[in-house]
Amino acid sequence: MKKRIMAKGKQSKNAGAAQNTSKLKVISLGGLQEVGKNITVLEYENDIIIIDCGMGFPDDEMPGVDFVIPDTTYLEKNIDKIRGIFITHGHEDHIGALPYVLRDLHVPVYATRLTLGILRNKLSEHSYEETPELIECKPGDKIRAGVFSIEFIHVNHSIADACCFAIKTPVGTVVHTGDFKIDLTPIDGAMIDIARLGQLGNEGVLLLLCESTNAERPGYTPSEKNVGASLEDIFFKNPDKRIVIASFSSNVHRVQQIIDTSAHYKRKVAITGRSMLNVVSAALELGYMTVPENVLIDINEIKKYSLEQLTLITTGSQGEPMSALSRMAFAEHDKVELGTRDLVVISASPIPGNEKLVGKVINELCKKHISVIHSGVADVHVSGHACQEEIKMMHALLKPKFLMPIHGEERHLEAHKALAEAMGMTPDHIFVSEIGRVLEVDKNTARFNGTVPAGRVLVDGYGVGDVGNIVLRDRRHLAQDGLIVVVATIDTIERNIISGPDVVSRGFVYVREAEELMDEIRTIAQEAILECFESDMLDWNHIKSAVKDDLTKYLYAKTKRKPMILPVIMNV
Amino acid sequence: MKKRIMAKGKQSKNAGAAQNTSKLKVISLGGLQEVGKNITVLEYENDIIIIDCGMGFPDDEMPGVDFVIPDTTYLEKNIDKIRGIFITHGHEDHIGALPYVLRDLHVPVYATRLTLGILRNKLSEHSYEETPELIECKPGDKIRAGVFSIEFIHVNHSIADACCFAIKTPVGTVVHTGDFKIDLTPIDGAMIDIARLGQLGNEGVLLLLCESTNAERPGYTPSEKNVGASLEDIFFKNPDKRIVIASFSSNVHRVQQIIDTSAHYKRKVAITGRSMLNVVSAALELGYMTVPENVLIDINEIKKYSLEQLTLITTGSQGEPMSALSRMAFAEHDKVELGTRDLVVISASPIPGNEKLVGKVINELCKKHISVIHSGVADVHVSGHACQEEIKMMHALLKPKFLMPIHGEERHLEAHKALAEAMGMTPDHIFVSEIGRVLEVDKNTARFNGTVPAGRVLVDGYGVGDVGNIVLRDRRHLAQDGLIVVVATIDTIERNIISGPDVVSRGFVYVREAEELMDEIRTIAQEAILECFESDMLDWNHIKSAVKDDLTKYLYAKTKRKPMILPVIMNV
Repeated sequence: MKKRIMAKGKQSKNAGAAQNTSKLKVISLGGLQEVGKNITVLEYENDIIIIDCGMGFPDDEMPGVDFVIPDTTYLEKNIDKIRGIFITHGHEDHIGALPYVLRDLHVPVYATRLTLGILRNKLSEHSYEETPELIECKPGDKIRAGVFSIEFIHVNHSIADACCFAIKTPVGTVVHTGDFKIDLTPIDGAMIDIARLGQLGNEGVLLLLCESTNAERPGYTPSEKNVGASLEDIFFKNPDKRIVIASFSSNVHRVQQIIDTSAHYKRKVAITGRSMLNVVSAALELGYMTVPENVLIDINEIKKYSLEQLTLITTGSQGEPMSALSRMAFAEHDKVELGTRDLVVISASPIPGNEKLVGKVINELCKKHISVIHSGVADVHVSGHACQEEIKMMHALLKPKFLMPIHGEERHLEAHKALAEAMGMTPDHIFVSEIGRVLEVDKNTARFNGTVPAGRVLVDGYGVGDVGNIVLRDRRHLAQDGLIVVVATIDTIERNIISGPDVVSRGFVYVREAEELMDEIRTIAQEAILECFESDMLDWNHIKSAVKDDLTKYLYAKTKRKPMILPVIMNV
Repeated sequence: MKKRIMAKGKQSKNAGAAQNTSKLKVISLGGLQEVGKNITVLEYENDIIIIDCGMGFPDDEMPGVDFVIPDTTYLEKNIDKIRGIFITHGHEDHIGALPYVLRDLHVPVYATRLTLGILRNKLSEHSYEETPELIECKPGDKIRAGVFSIEFIHVNHSIADACCFAIKTPVGTVVHTGDFKIDLTPIDGAMIDIARLGQLGNEGVLLLLCESTNAERPGYTPSEKNVGASLEDIFFKNPDKRIVIASFSSNVHRVQQIIDTSAHYKRKVAITGRSMLNVVSAALELGYMTVPENVLIDINEIKKYSLEQLTLITTGSQGEPMSALSRMAFAEHDKVELGTRDLVVISASPIPGNEKLVGKVINELCKKHISVIHSGVADVHVSGHACQEEIKMMHALLKPKFLMPIHGEERHLEAHKALAEAMGMTPDHIFVSEIGRVLEVDKNTARFNGTVPAGRVLVDGYGVGDVGNIVLRDRRHLAQDGLIVVVATIDTIERNIISGPDVVSRGFVYVREAEELMDEIRTIAQEAILECFESDMLDWNHIKSAVKDDLTKYLYAKTKRKPMILPVIMNV
């Protein structure tokens, strides 16, 4: 039965009356000019809804940072207006920031069953004053949230139970695609609901917020079934080997195909890697995966079977150093020892930036003469995102008046814009936005109007937001050239050095082979301090600057490096 | 006229007499299990020749390192045996270590004209007690070097004047391919000398050392001419734009094609970027490039022409932050300001690891609505390395008895081995080696026998080899979590703290917003010191350890981070 829920919070007084004069505000707080931390805000007078709330991954410029979440200052300031958070699917870049954001925002979260299953698992690692309210929805459900009505519509993606949203607003219908592809032969038989999208198009769509991940790629993304055919081929050709397959744990359909192929070839399947175990058990429990009896075995039982009777499904498809596959490759896995009778299949593409990590694992396996099949040499992976022709199909179905491309770097958003123009949309109806930028829309017009606070909050260990640009700049500096600490205890009244200067260095040169240089550093620091005494510069900051400047100059001339110099001057 | 030179050094006494009992040693000191720093040593009794002497680039595990050169300890120990260094072509990964290695090894370097031109340019930035002896060779030349005779044979590659070597040794002929591709329509008209390779094959090849870069890629690498066709298409379709093309400066034929296409479309060409200017002027001077009159203009003259009359050729195809293209993209180039009437073509693929840097430049250009064409969306680049069918062709021509795949990571070397097996070679005739490993070969047998010292030497600024594993470990640690310096002056006789403890932190937290935490750190450090006094632990190392341990524990529990703790305790 289709659900019609009235979301928390009073219905906006203004709904109806003022609908012709007010404007809908559309603001992405993440997911534009970047891949990840997707979050989009729709605001109309006293009502706000939030779509997705994801995390992003740090780049090379953010050493030591675990992950990145969106700055939600704007939401905290407008907390009374928020009617709910609606989640398209259970990937980290769509739900990953919720555990943090829900600490301050006590609003209900609407999502499908598998998405909530994954989310509950994440939330259980945090503690909350008020237990977050999670409301299960399914495709076809329409949720009333203030002036908004949000309809869940089924889409295909690399995770099960993914949806897009058709949002009825006082100014017209907004469609937010979430992440999607058009899979004509999906594993669970449920194709993206093209009929409903077409119907919405016929009824009239004011604004389309459409994902742009693959907007540079021509053609269609192949069906998930294609991977099944490749797997079938691999299993057929390797009857004498144990097959070890790494994939994204959240790709329930991929895992289902691996299990099905294994069962077909009378193999037992063991799972390893924490997230893979979590997702498989959640998917089984919630009915998103079906496993023939006596196929799944515990990893501890693999010794009971000969190698060719086994398939192992593992995490580590991105080369993550602590993952099960990496541990196997480097012979550090306590349950699985790989050998020449193993075949490793990496059923995933490296996410940009992970190429070298994945390469390391492949090389280590090759070194041990273990065969490896990866996406560079066989069709063992397909993307979960729409390529150009699918994006065009979405446009053709919905025929939106306005477009705001979302989910992508500049190159993807601009490529999406070019596609829309090729479909006949005029450039002034296409809005390539930035995070925090406000797009104001009414029935006939759309325009940018101002910005709200937006940005990134870095999470490092337990710290949320305590690592900022200054800390990162220092980390990068330290990583480049290391540091030299110069410590001296001085007596500014007697004008003499009581102790030191002592020099400690880390990450600069191998000190045991650079004693002469260290002595030189000590001498220069001492001279700098004594010179300050002589010229009546007794202020600490002066002395510190003098030491720092003299050493920086000396070391650059001598080594062409600029280590961080930290003078610590103590007075007695 | 073909050259026959007798290389420096006495001819080995043993040549001839002992040739049936002695073995040829083949040792790669770089270029195996890695991409870069290619260098291979051939040794027979009292004679050594060296083939190539390249640099490698640092990976993420080597922050701050500029580049990597091979450890040549083995060569320094056997300096009297070395008869010469033979260079296949002028790319950094084949010549880049020479400026350093030639400081200690005073042996002649043999190479073709363009290669020497590029090398001279590099050497001019260094100073030498003894001017390195550079000897120009050309395809067909046979150089006598001790017992060895080295023949230069023309190959196609992404740089002009590239050669492979056929080396006559007392045990048989060894062929070292260098880097190569088979280009049936090369820009300069000179195809790889397949006839000579076939002849060598008929005469008998004992050992093939063959590059493996593209051994995972099926099919053939397209001809350089294909890029010309794409360029033609781009120029034809963009008559109203200035065209800015980034490429590798050393790809003389690519640059030639860009100039030719520009001339055809009546455009003037200006060059920007130091290495592009260097290479173009060297190539023109040495006759490797021909430019129609009045086509090249100085970058300072571009203002005299309208945009559509201009082509700019620039460095920066790898997204290097200080390159001309990056500076243009970020509006920091002092001569070129890009706008919507510019079309930027990145005529190169990102080298693995550079994807994000290149992406940054593309995104910045997109943000400014400047059109970009890159290798992901058009055929504006081809590889310079042989794909599987070309590697097979090399094998088919040479019919070697033994194979040692070179130039590649494990995955490439193993893929090459698989190709050779598919060609009918038996696995026991294929030797996947490691750097420093000695392959001993005689007329009928080959086997691994022992190792020699080999490894990497890191170059950071002026420092060659003074950054090692300990320094790198510290740099990585500092980059991850920053550091905390705790300084105290103590009096161990009176057992009191005279000054401090003072706490300085960098790269850990934003201190101004973490005063409480800093106070806590001070208190814990103080307590740790006082506790040492109380329990008669007056040794500095004890006190330092106590401070370090207590703080590490406290901070991990509090922040889940492990900053480097540097206690500096001074005694008065």
